[in-house]
Amino acid sequence: MHKSKYIESLQNPLIKKLVLLKEKHRGRKKSGLFVLEGTREFQMALNSGYKMYTVLFYSGIVEENRVLQYLDGLAHLPDLVEVSKEVYQRIAYREKTEGIVAIAESKIHGLEELKFENKNPLILIAESPEKPGNLGAMLRTADAAKLDAVILADPKGDLYNPNVIRSSVGCIFTVQIGMASSKEVIRYLKEKKIGIYAAALSASIPYHQVDFTGPSAIAVGTESTGLTATWLQNADQNIIIPMQGEIDSMNVSVSAAIIIFEAKRQRAFK
Amino acid sequence: MHKSKYIESLQNPLIKKLVLLKEKHRGRKKSGLFVLEGTREFQMALNSGYKMYTVLFYSGIVEENRVLQYLDGLAHLPDLVEVSKEVYQRIAYREKTEGIVAIAESKIHGLEELKFENKNPLILIAESPEKPGNLGAMLRTADAAKLDAVILADPKGDLYNPNVIRSSVGCIFTVQIGMASSKEVIRYLKEKKIGIYAAALSASIPYHQVDFTGPSAIAVGTESTGLTATWLQNADQNIIIPMQGEIDSMNVSVSAAIIIFEAKRQRAFK
Repeated sequence: MHKSKYIESLQNPLIKKLVLLKEKHRGRKKSGLFVLEGTREFQMALNSGYKMYTVLFYSGIVEENRVLQYLDGLAHLPDLVEVSKEVYQRIAYREKTEGIVAIAESKIHGLEELKFENKNPLILIAESPEKPGNLGAMLRTADAAKLDAVILADPKGDLYNPNVIRSSVGCIFTVQIGMASSKEVIRYLKEKKIGIYAAALSASIPYHQVDFTGPSAIAVGTESTGLTATWLQNADQNIIIPMQGEIDSMNVSVSAAIIIFEAKRQRAFK
Repeated sequence: MHKSKYIESLQNPLIKKLVLLKEKHRGRKKSGLFVLEGTREFQMALNSGYKMYTVLFYSGIVEENRVLQYLDGLAHLPDLVEVSKEVYQRIAYREKTEGIVAIAESKIHGLEELKFENKNPLILIAESPEKPGNLGAMLRTADAAKLDAVILADPKGDLYNPNVIRSSVGCIFTVQIGMASSKEVIRYLKEKKIGIYAAALSASIPYHQVDFTGPSAIAVGTESTGLTATWLQNADQNIIIPMQGEIDSMNVSVSAAIIIFEAKRQRAFK
């Protein structure tokens, strides 16, 4: 029987380390570890082969037996730690109280790790996504559309930022994610003969007139400035979503979803 | 020459009233007034015929002459009030500092106010939207798609909530918005012979197999529970966005955008 420890002090070194991992990008980068929260996120990460180091739970919300069930069958059992209410409130997000917080190991997201089962892959490229909420939303859409991969080109923020994990509702764990410089991504796509369709703020071809049934990468930029010239010049086709109202820009995760699902429609959702 | 007043005290009754309007739904409801912020939002509201009562500006960010230019040609000139830096920081959103805050009059959003220029209108129905950010995002999409109207059925929150205005990036002012109970909205749509297509969490017809070229209302529910039975039972067709990943729900504003733009595509963006 797995035996859990009990921590009730905010001064405990493990709790201090966890808070640091949660709040500091540098701490995550240095250690290769990150913090996730919530039973659903926890299960999705486990199912996707993420390695858990430490699992903390608050028995006022979730029972130890329940947590043990989640861990059943794992080759490597993480440390199990029961925490007091006070500690749980410190380590959990304010609005979310599912009783589980875990320290897990980041995956490696090099392009060479990507594997495509589909011979006509459909990929989303996000260049330097700025807002964690938008990146999370795009990962959620990518899961729903079962995209073959999402590639972050010249990523600026941290993929394992708690706000990305939260806004992706755990899809950060279910979607195949690559990260590299824009130049490396473009070279990779051209080598693999994957067509690049760049969502531009001005372009002559509307997105729905493009054929997405071949291997396709849909590229979107930041909400404020769009894709850089590197992408617009190296794309097989720059595309635009016709906008007929008074504003001149859409939310980037909404734009991405519209184009992704047009591609899915053309592929008859196969 | 229009002469502005100057307020430097947080205790000034006008400032107290403004803060109350901004922060309290009840204050807005009782007075029919609301607060908006930002030069862009201000101009969009003016262009859409919103009546301004008081315009406050901080000269450290925007010059009085600039504000006067915005007001040029208005039949009814609002009170113009210059405020101190301290007052401006109190009345403005934390992250936004464009120098203009205004008290404006709400519009009336009864169904009888809606006017359709298009004989095949395309409408979005949002049933009891929960999150201001999602409602704002849908209004932004509605502007981009130039929808004929957005109708809030059984609205729970307040349309003029500052977070709705902000996340709509001003599109709350450019989109024709109706509000009524679900029963009234359904009766209205049936009278006008507008087809109701209800986005369901489970349904047999995928959205892209529906013909949206006739008068169409796309109805979406809340993110947590979807549309109520009232809508699902009264729809001409329940539709679903095929989801092929691990999660079972999409963000409601993303779902709405995908269906709206499929309708736009079928209509060749006309």
